[in-house]
Amino acid sequence: MLDNAPWAPLVASAITVVLILVLGFVLRNVSHRLITRVVNRAATGGSITSRFRKDTATDGIDALLNERRKQRAETMGSVLKHVASIVILGTAVLTVLDRLTIPIAPLLTSVGILGVAIGFGAQELVKDFIAGMFMLLEDQYGVGDVIDAGAAVGTVEAVTLRVTRLRDADGRVWYVRNGTITRVGNESQGWSRAYMDVPVAYDADVVGVRVLLEHVAEEIWADPELRESKIVEQPQVFGVEQLSDSSLVFRITAKTLPAQQAAVSRELRLRVKAALDSAGIAMVSTA
Amino acid sequence: MLDNAPWAPLVASAITVVLILVLGFVLRNVSHRLITRVVNRAATGGSITSRFRKDTATDGIDALLNERRKQRAETMGSVLKHVASIVILGTAVLTVLDRLTIPIAPLLTSVGILGVAIGFGAQELVKDFIAGMFMLLEDQYGVGDVIDAGAAVGTVEAVTLRVTRLRDADGRVWYVRNGTITRVGNESQGWSRAYMDVPVAYDADVVGVRVLLEHVAEEIWADPELRESKIVEQPQVFGVEQLSDSSLVFRITAKTLPAQQAAVSRELRLRVKAALDSAGIAMVSTA
Amino acid sequence: MLDNAPWAPLVASAITVVLILVLGFVLRNVSHRLITRVVNRAATGGSITSRFRKDTATDGIDALLNERRKQRAETMGSVLKHVASIVILGTAVLTVLDRLTIPIAPLLTSVGILGVAIGFGAQELVKDFIAGMFMLLEDQYGVGDVIDAGAAVGTVEAVTLRVTRLRDADGRVWYVRNGTITRVGNESQGWSRAYMDVPVAYDADVVGVRVLLEHVAEEIWADPELRESKIVEQPQVFGVEQLSDSSLVFRITAKTLPAQQAAVSRELRLRVKAALDSAGIAMVSTA
Amino acid sequence: MLDNAPWAPLVASAITVVLILVLGFVLRNVSHRLITRVVNRAATGGSITSRFRKDTATDGIDALLNERRKQRAETMGSVLKHVASIVILGTAVLTVLDRLTIPIAPLLTSVGILGVAIGFGAQELVKDFIAGMFMLLEDQYGVGDVIDAGAAVGTVEAVTLRVTRLRDADGRVWYVRNGTITRVGNESQGWSRAYMDVPVAYDADVVGVRVLLEHVAEEIWADPELRESKIVEQPQVFGVEQLSDSSLVFRITAKTLPAQQAAVSRELRLRVKAALDSAGIAMVSTA
Amino acid sequence: MLDNAPWAPLVASAITVVLILVLGFVLRNVSHRLITRVVNRAATGGSITSRFRKDTATDGIDALLNERRKQRAETMGSVLKHVASIVILGTAVLTVLDRLTIPIAPLLTSVGILGVAIGFGAQELVKDFIAGMFMLLEDQYGVGDVIDAGAAVGTVEAVTLRVTRLRDADGRVWYVRNGTITRVGNESQGWSRAYMDVPVAYDADVVGVRVLLEHVAEEIWADPELRESKIVEQPQVFGVEQLSDSSLVFRITAKTLPAQQAAVSRELRLRVKAALDSAGIAMVSTA
Amino acid sequence: MLDNAPWAPLVASAITVVLILVLGFVLRNVSHRLITRVVNRAATGGSITSRFRKDTATDGIDALLNERRKQRAETMGSVLKHVASIVILGTAVLTVLDRLTIPIAPLLTSVGILGVAIGFGAQELVKDFIAGMFMLLEDQYGVGDVIDAGAAVGTVEAVTLRVTRLRDADGRVWYVRNGTITRVGNESQGWSRAYMDVPVAYDADVVGVRVLLEHVAEEIWADPELRESKIVEQPQVFGVEQLSDSSLVFRITAKTLPAQQAAVSRELRLRVKAALDSAGIAMVSTA
Amino acid sequence: MLDNAPWAPLVASAITVVLILVLGFVLRNVSHRLITRVVNRAATGGSITSRFRKDTATDGIDALLNERRKQRAETMGSVLKHVASIVILGTAVLTVLDRLTIPIAPLLTSVGILGVAIGFGAQELVKDFIAGMFMLLEDQYGVGDVIDAGAAVGTVEAVTLRVTRLRDADGRVWYVRNGTITRVGNESQGWSRAYMDVPVAYDADVVGVRVLLEHVAEEIWADPELRESKIVEQPQVFGVEQLSDSSLVFRITAKTLPAQQAAVSRELRLRVKAALDSAGIAMVSTA
Repeated sequence: MLDNAPWAPLVASAITVVLILVLGFVLRNVSHRLITRVVNRAATGGSITSRFRKDTATDGIDALLNERRKQRAETMGSVLKHVASIVILGTAVLTVLDRLTIPIAPLLTSVGILGVAIGFGAQELVKDFIAGMFMLLEDQYGVGDVIDAGAAVGTVEAVTLRVTRLRDADGRVWYVRNGTITRVGNESQGWSRAYMDVPVAYDADVVGVRVLLEHVAEEIWADPELRESKIVEQPQVFGVEQLSDSSLVFRITAKTLPAQQAAVSRELRLRVKAALDSAGIAMVSTA
Repeated sequence: MLDNAPWAPLVASAITVVLILVLGFVLRNVSHRLITRVVNRAATGGSITSRFRKDTATDGIDALLNERRKQRAETMGSVLKHVASIVILGTAVLTVLDRLTIPIAPLLTSVGILGVAIGFGAQELVKDFIAGMFMLLEDQYGVGDVIDAGAAVGTVEAVTLRVTRLRDADGRVWYVRNGTITRVGNESQGWSRAYMDVPVAYDADVVGVRVLLEHVAEEIWADPELRESKIVEQPQVFGVEQLSDSSLVFRITAKTLPAQQAAVSRELRLRVKAALDSAGIAMVSTA
Repeated sequence: MLDNAPWAPLVASAITVVLILVLGFVLRNVSHRLITRVVNRAATGGSITSRFRKDTATDGIDALLNERRKQRAETMGSVLKHVASIVILGTAVLTVLDRLTIPIAPLLTSVGILGVAIGFGAQELVKDFIAGMFMLLEDQYGVGDVIDAGAAVGTVEAVTLRVTRLRDADGRVWYVRNGTITRVGNESQGWSRAYMDVPVAYDADVVGVRVLLEHVAEEIWADPELRESKIVEQPQVFGVEQLSDSSLVFRITAKTLPAQQAAVSRELRLRVKAALDSAGIAMVSTA
Repeated sequence: MLDNAPWAPLVASAITVVLILVLGFVLRNVSHRLITRVVNRAATGGSITSRFRKDTATDGIDALLNERRKQRAETMGSVLKHVASIVILGTAVLTVLDRLTIPIAPLLTSVGILGVAIGFGAQELVKDFIAGMFMLLEDQYGVGDVIDAGAAVGTVEAVTLRVTRLRDADGRVWYVRNGTITRVGNESQGWSRAYMDVPVAYDADVVGVRVLLEHVAEEIWADPELRESKIVEQPQVFGVEQLSDSSLVFRITAKTLPAQQAAVSRELRLRVKAALDSAGIAMVSTA
Repeated sequence: MLDNAPWAPLVASAITVVLILVLGFVLRNVSHRLITRVVNRAATGGSITSRFRKDTATDGIDALLNERRKQRAETMGSVLKHVASIVILGTAVLTVLDRLTIPIAPLLTSVGILGVAIGFGAQELVKDFIAGMFMLLEDQYGVGDVIDAGAAVGTVEAVTLRVTRLRDADGRVWYVRNGTITRVGNESQGWSRAYMDVPVAYDADVVGVRVLLEHVAEEIWADPELRESKIVEQPQVFGVEQLSDSSLVFRITAKTLPAQQAAVSRELRLRVKAALDSAGIAMVSTA
Repeated sequence: MLDNAPWAPLVASAITVVLILVLGFVLRNVSHRLITRVVNRAATGGSITSRFRKDTATDGIDALLNERRKQRAETMGSVLKHVASIVILGTAVLTVLDRLTIPIAPLLTSVGILGVAIGFGAQELVKDFIAGMFMLLEDQYGVGDVIDAGAAVGTVEAVTLRVTRLRDADGRVWYVRNGTITRVGNESQGWSRAYMDVPVAYDADVVGVRVLLEHVAEEIWADPELRESKIVEQPQVFGVEQLSDSSLVFRITAKTLPAQQAAVSRELRLRVKAALDSAGIAMVSTA
Repeated sequence: MLDNAPWAPLVASAITVVLILVLGFVLRNVSHRLITRVVNRAATGGSITSRFRKDTATDGIDALLNERRKQRAETMGSVLKHVASIVILGTAVLTVLDRLTIPIAPLLTSVGILGVAIGFGAQELVKDFIAGMFMLLEDQYGVGDVIDAGAAVGTVEAVTLRVTRLRDADGRVWYVRNGTITRVGNESQGWSRAYMDVPVAYDADVVGVRVLLEHVAEEIWADPELRESKIVEQPQVFGVEQLSDSSLVFRITAKTLPAQQAAVSRELRLRVKAALDSAGIAMVSTA
C-alpha cells in the first residue's frame, strides 16, 4: 500500500539514514566503554614501578600510584576514543551519503589529495603518539621520576601522548617529543648506586687500606639514619680496580634508595676522607 | 509541465550548481566558526606558563599573557581555516563539474601527477606546520622567552607555524624551522638555578668552610633587594661534591627567578670570594 | 538542419576544442595576474628587515629595500606562474584529446612510469624550491646580508629559489641548496654585540677594575665618531664572570650596528689595554 | 518448495552468515594451535645459550633454561595469535557484510585513510616487534644476562617484543626499543676474558719477567677456588706487546666463566703486583 | 565502396599505425630542437663566472668560456633529449599496440613490477642527474676550477651529469656523485684573499707595528709584478685582532686574483718577516 | 550427456580444484629442485677463500671447506624454497577460491591492510636477508674467520641469513644484523702483514741501521719454524718513513699467514730490540 | 571451412601461443645482441684511465687495458641481459596465460604482495647494482688500482656490480657495497705527488736554504733512475709555507708516477737530510 505512495522512497531513505546514524552512535558508545575497560586493565596490570616501590612504600605512595595509574588510563583512553569516534562516525556519514545517492567521489578526492600530502608530514606525529602510548602502557616513567631521555635529563613534570616535559637541574624546562626518545633511563625505580674511587700510593698497605674501607662500610651500615632513609645494603669494598706505576685504586659502593645516591656519595667521601686522614694514608692523583 | 520544456535540464543544473555552491560557503563559514571556538578554548586552557607565572605576576604580565593567548589562537586558527576552505570549496567545485557532466579526470590527472611530485618534497613543510601547531597548542614558548632550540639559543622574537625566530646574545637573528626542533629547553618558565663550585685545599677545615658558605647563603637570602627581584629560596650548600688529592669541592646553589641566574651567580661569586678572603681561605685549582 | 550534415560532428568537435583551449589560456592569464597580486602583497608585507632598518635608514637604503622587495616578488612569482601554466594547459590538452576520443591512457602510462621514477629523485629539488619560497616570503635574508647558513658563512651574493650563493671571507664562492639549510643566522638585522673578556689577577682590586672598565665604557659612548656610525648603546660592564684560583674575569660588551662588531671589538681591546696599562694592572692568562 | 517462500532468502543469508562465522572461529583456533606448536619447536631448538651453559650447568640452571624457553615461546606466540585472529575474524566480518549486501566501501575508505596515516608512523613499532621476535627466536639474550645494547649496558630485567629493560651498574633502569638495537653484545654466553698489561722498564730482563708472569699464571691455575668457580683455562702470558723508548709491555690473560672477568682481573692485579714487588721489578708508566 | 572490402580494416589499421609513428618521430624531432634552443639560451644566460671573469679576461679566456658554455649546453641537452625520445616513442608504440588491439596489460605488468623495484633504488641516480643538471644550469663550476665539494677538494677535471671528477693536490683522482654535494665552494670565481697573522709581544709599540705593517702593505701594492698578475687591491692592516697576557695579534690581508692567495701569502710572510727583523721586533708564540 | 546432469558443474569444479592443487604441488617441487641445483652451483663456484686457502691447505682444510660450502648452499636454499612455496601455493589457493566463486576481495583487503602496515616495518628484515644471501653467495666470510664487521670485531661463530654471530677477544658474543654491515674486513683470507716502526736518533747512522734491520729480516726468513708456519715472504725494510728534528723512523714489515701477524710482530719486536741493544743503538720517542 | 570445426579455437589458440613464445625468444635474442653492442661501445669509449696511461704505457699495459675493457663489458652486459630476459619472457608468459583465458589475477596478487614487501628491502640492492653499473661505465677504477673508498683504502682485487673487494696494507680483505661509496679517490690515475716539509730555525738564511733545496731538486731530476721510473717533473721548492716564532717551513714537492709517491718521499727525505747535514743547517720542531 504505502510502497506505491510517491513519497515512499523518501520515507524509506529517511528511516535508513536515521537507523545508520543511531547504529553509529551506539557503536561509538560501545567502543568507548570497551576502550575504557581495556585501558584500565592495562594500566592496573602490575607495572614494575608499583612492584618495586611496594617494598618501601607508605600509604601516601600507594595513593600516588593509584592517581598515576588513573591518569595513565585516561591519557591513553582519550586518543583511542577519538580514533574510534572518527572511524565509526566517518563511516556512518559516508554510508548515509551513499544511501542518499549523493556522489562522494569528489569529497574523497579532495580529502584524499590533502590527506596524502599531510600523511607524509604527519608520520612524525603518529610516531610520537604511538611511542607515548606504549610508554604509558609500559609505565616507563611518571610525573616525579628523574629520567635520562637522551635529549635532556631531569625530573618529569608532565607526560602527554606527544611530549614529555622535564625540568633539569638548572631549572630549564625541556619539551621532548616522545617519538625521538629511543631509550629512556629511569633513575627512580627500585634502587641506585653510590660509589667512590679511592686512589692510594703504589706502595700503600693493600690489606690495611682494604680493612679500613670495610670498617667505613660497616660504620655506614650501622648508622640508623642512613639505614632508614638512604641505603638498602651494607656498602661493598672492591679490591684493586686499577694498578699503575703511581697508584692503586680501591672502590667502595653502596646500594641506595632511588635519588639518594648523591647524598650517600657525599657521606662516603666525608667518612672515607676522615678515616684515611686519621690513619695517615694520603690519596694520590689518579691521572 | 515545465519538465518538458527543452531548457528544463539547464535550469535544473543551474539550480543544483547554485545550491551546491551556497552549501559549500555555508559549510565553510560554519567550519571557520567551529575552528575559532575550538582554538580559543585550546589556547586559554591553563598553559603551564600562565600557571607558573601567576605567582610572580603583576597585572602587566597578565595583560601580556592574554595578548599571547590571543596571538596563539589566531596563528593556529588561520591555517586550519585555510585547510577547511580548500577542502570544502574544492569538493564543491568538483561536485559542480561532475553535475555538469564536465569530465574531471584530466584535471585530476594533471593535479595528481604534480601533487605526488610536490607531495614528496612538501613533507618537510607539513612537518614544520604540524610541529608549530602543537608547539603553540602546548604553549612551549612564546615571544620573549629564552630558549635552547638545539640549532640556536636565544630570545624568541617571533613564532610562526613554520619557523621560530630567535636573537642570540651576539645579536644574530636565527630562523629555525619548527620541524627540526626535536626538543626545546625553555629557560623562562618558573625558576632557574644559579650555582658556584668552591674548590678548597685538601687539608682545609671542612666544617669551617661549610659554615662559612652557609653564612653567605643566609646573608644573600636576607638581602631585601635580591629576595624581592632575584631569588626565590634561601641558597643551599652541598657538602663535598668532589674529592681528590689536591682539592675538596663544595657547591652552593640558589633557585632564582627566570633569567636571573647569571646575575645571581655573579653576586654569589663576589660574596663567596669576599668571605673566603676575609677568612683567609684560598680557592685552589680544580684541574 | 545542420545537425544532420555529415561534417556536423567534426565542426562540433572543432568548436569544443577551440573553446577549451581559449578557456585554458584565459584561466592561465587570470591565474598569473592573481599570483602577481598575491606575491606583491606578500613581499611588501612589513618584513622585519625593513622595520629594523628604518631606524637607521637613509633614502638610499629605502630604495635598496624597494628593489629587494621587487626582486623577491618576481622570483617567487615566476615559479608559481610556471606551475599554474603547466597545470592549466596540461589539463586543457588532456581534455581536448579526450574530447577527440584519442586514447590518452598510453600517454599517461609513459609519463606516469617516468614520472614516478623521477618523482622519487626530485623530492630534494622540490624541497629546495619550497624552502626557497618560504625564505623569500619570510625575507630571512637578502643580497648583501652576512649569514651563517651552516654549510658556509659569508655575504649573500644571490638568492634563487634553489640555491643561495655566498662569498666567504677568503673570497670563496659557496652554493648552498636552500633545502639543506635548516637554520639561518643573519648577522645584518638590527644590531650586533661586541664583547671583550678581561682576566685580571686573583688579588686584583675588584671594585677598582670595575670602575676603570666603566670609565672606558663611558669614554667610548662619548666618542662622537663611534656613536654616530658604530655603536647604539653605552657599553655595559658585567661583574665577575668567572672566578678561579688564578684569575677573575670581567666582561665588557657593546651593542653595535650590524657588521660593526669586529671594528668595535678592536676599539674595545685598544682602549681597555691602554687603560689597564696606565693603571698598572696586568691581564693574566685565563687558561 | 521452500525456495519460493518470501523469507527464504533471509534464512539462506542467516545460514551463510552463521557458517562463515563458525568457519572463522574454527580457522582461528586451528591457527592458534599451529602457532603454539611451531613456536614451541622454535624455542626448544638448541639455542647456543643452552649448549654453552650445559658445560657448567647444574639442575637449577636447567630448570631456569626451561622456564626461559617457555617464556620465549609464550611471548612470541601471543603476538602471532593476535595477528592471526585479526586477519581471520576481519575477513569473516567483511565476508558477512558482503553477503548481506551491506556496502563495505565506506567502511574501508574510513579505515583505509586512517590506516595509511597511521601506517607511516607505525613502521617503527612494527620494526620493534619484528626485531624482538627474531631476538627471541635466536635467543640472543634472556633475563639475567649482562648485555651491551649500544644505548645502554646492563643486566636484562625483562624482554618484551617491543622493548628490552636493562638495569645498569648505577641502578638506572633503561628501556631500549628492540628495533633500535642493531648489534647486541652478550657477556654471559660461554666465557669471558680477563687480562692485565704489565709495563716494565726498557732495560728489564725480558726472559726473567716472562718466567715470573708464567709462574703467576701457574699459581692461579693451581688455586682450587679460582679453578672451580672462576677460570676455565690456565692463564696465558704473551710476549712483548708494545715496545717503545721507555717501556716493554707484557700481557697476561685468563679465560673465565661469564661475568667473572672483573673478579679475576682484580686477582691478577694483586698477584702480579706481589710477584713483581718480591722480585724487585718496578712497573713503569706506559704513557 | 572500399569500405566494404574485407581488407579495409587492415589497411585502415596500417595507415593509422604509420600515421602514429610518423607523428611520433615528428614530435621527437620538434622536441629535440626545442630542447637545443632552450638549453642554449640557458647556457648563454649571463653566468656569474663570465661576468666576474670579464674584468680580467683576455680573448683566450673568452674563447674558453664559449667552449665551456657549449659543452654545458650539450651535456644538459643530451639527457633531456633522451627523456623526450623515450616518452614520445614509448607513447607511440603503446598507442600502436592499442590500436592493433594487442593486449598491453601483461607488458605493463611486467615492466611495472620491475619498474617499481628499480624505481626505489634508482632515486639516488635521479638525484645525481637532477643535481648535475642544475649545477650546469647555474654554472656553479667548470673544468679547471678549484672547488671544495665536501667529500674532496681539488681541481675539476670533468663534469658529467652524474659525477664530478676532481684531482686533489696529491694527484689523487676523486669521483664525487653530484647528488651528494650539498654545498660547493668555488675558489676560482672573482677573487681570493691572502692573510697573515702577526703576533707581537704584549708590550710592543702598537702604533709602531701598525705603521710598519701599513708600510709593507704599500710596498706590496707598489710592486708592479704583484699588482699586475696577483693582487687586486692594496693590502689592509687590521688592528689588534686578539689580546691576551702574552701577545697582541695584528692581521694583514690582501685581495688577490683567484688561485693566487698561496703565492701572495708567501710573499706577505717574506716581506713582513724582513720588515720586523730590520725593525728589531720579534714575533711571539700565539699559543 | 553428462553436461546436462545437475551435479555436472560441481564435478567440474571439483576436478578443476584438484587439478590446480596438483599442479601447484608439482610446480613447488620442481622449483625446489631448481633452487637446490642453482644454489649448489653458486656455492661451489670458485670462491676466493677456497682459492687462497688452497696454497696452504691440508686435507683437513679441504674437508672443512666442503662442509662450509654445503652449509652455505643449505642456508641460501632454505629461504628461497620458502618463498617459492608461498608464492606457488598462495596462487593455487587464490585460484581455487576464485574458481569456486568464493569472493576473495575481503580476504585480500584484510591481508592487504595488514600487509602494508607490516611491509613498512619489515623492510629492515628483508634488507638483512638480502644482505645475508649475497654475503653467503660471495662467500665473504665463514665460521672461524676473524672479521671486522664495523659494529664488532671478532671470530665468526655462526652465519645465518639475518645475523652474524661473532665472539670478540674478551669473550663477548655479538649478534650483528647482516643488513647493517656496509663493509666487512676479513683478516683470514690469504695473508696478513706484521710491521714494526723503529725510531732512532736524528744523528744515527742511517746506512748502519738499515743494514742491521735487513740482517734481522734475513735471520727471520732463515728461521725454519717461522718460515714453515708463520711468514710467507722475507721481511722488507723500508727507508726513512718519517723525519723530524728528533727522530728518524725506519719500518720493517713481514707478510704472514692469516692470523699470525700478532705473533710475528712480537717476534720482530724481540729480535729488533736484541739487535739494536747489541749494536748499542737506542730507540727514541717518536712523539 | 576449418573455422567451423569444433577444434578450430584450440588450434588457433595453440598457434597464437607458439607465435607469442617464438616472438618472445626472438625479441630476447635481439635485445641481447643490442646490449652487447651498446655495452662494448660504452666500454671502449676513451676512458680517462686509458688516455692517461697511454703516456707511460707499454704493450703489456695495453693488453691489460684491453682485458679490463672486455671484463667491464661482460660484467655490465650480464645484468642487463638478465633484466631484458625477465621482462620479455615474463610478458610473453603473461600474454599466453591471458590468451588461454587462464585468470592471472591471483598470480599477480601473490607476486604483487610479496613483491612490494621485498621491494622495500631490495632498494639497497638495486642501489648497489646501479652504482656498480655506472662505476664500470665511467671506469672509475679497475683491478689493481689503489683506491680510497671511504670505508676502506687498499688495492682493488675484484669489482662486481654489487661489491668492490679491496685488500688493505695489512692484508685485510674488505668487501665494500658499491652503493655505499659516495666518493672514490683513485691513486693510480696519471700521477701522484710526493712532498716534504722542511722546518728550519727562525733565524736561518732564507735564501740559502731555498738555493740548497733547489739544488736537491735538480739533483733528483738529474738522477736517471728516478727520472725513468719514478718522477715525471723536476721537483718544485715553495717558499715560506709557515712562519711563526720558532720556525720557517719550506716545502719541496715532486710529481711522480702513480703509486711511486712513498718511494720518492723516502728519497726526498734522505737527500734533503744529507744536504742540510752537510750544510750544517738543523731541522727544528714544527710544533
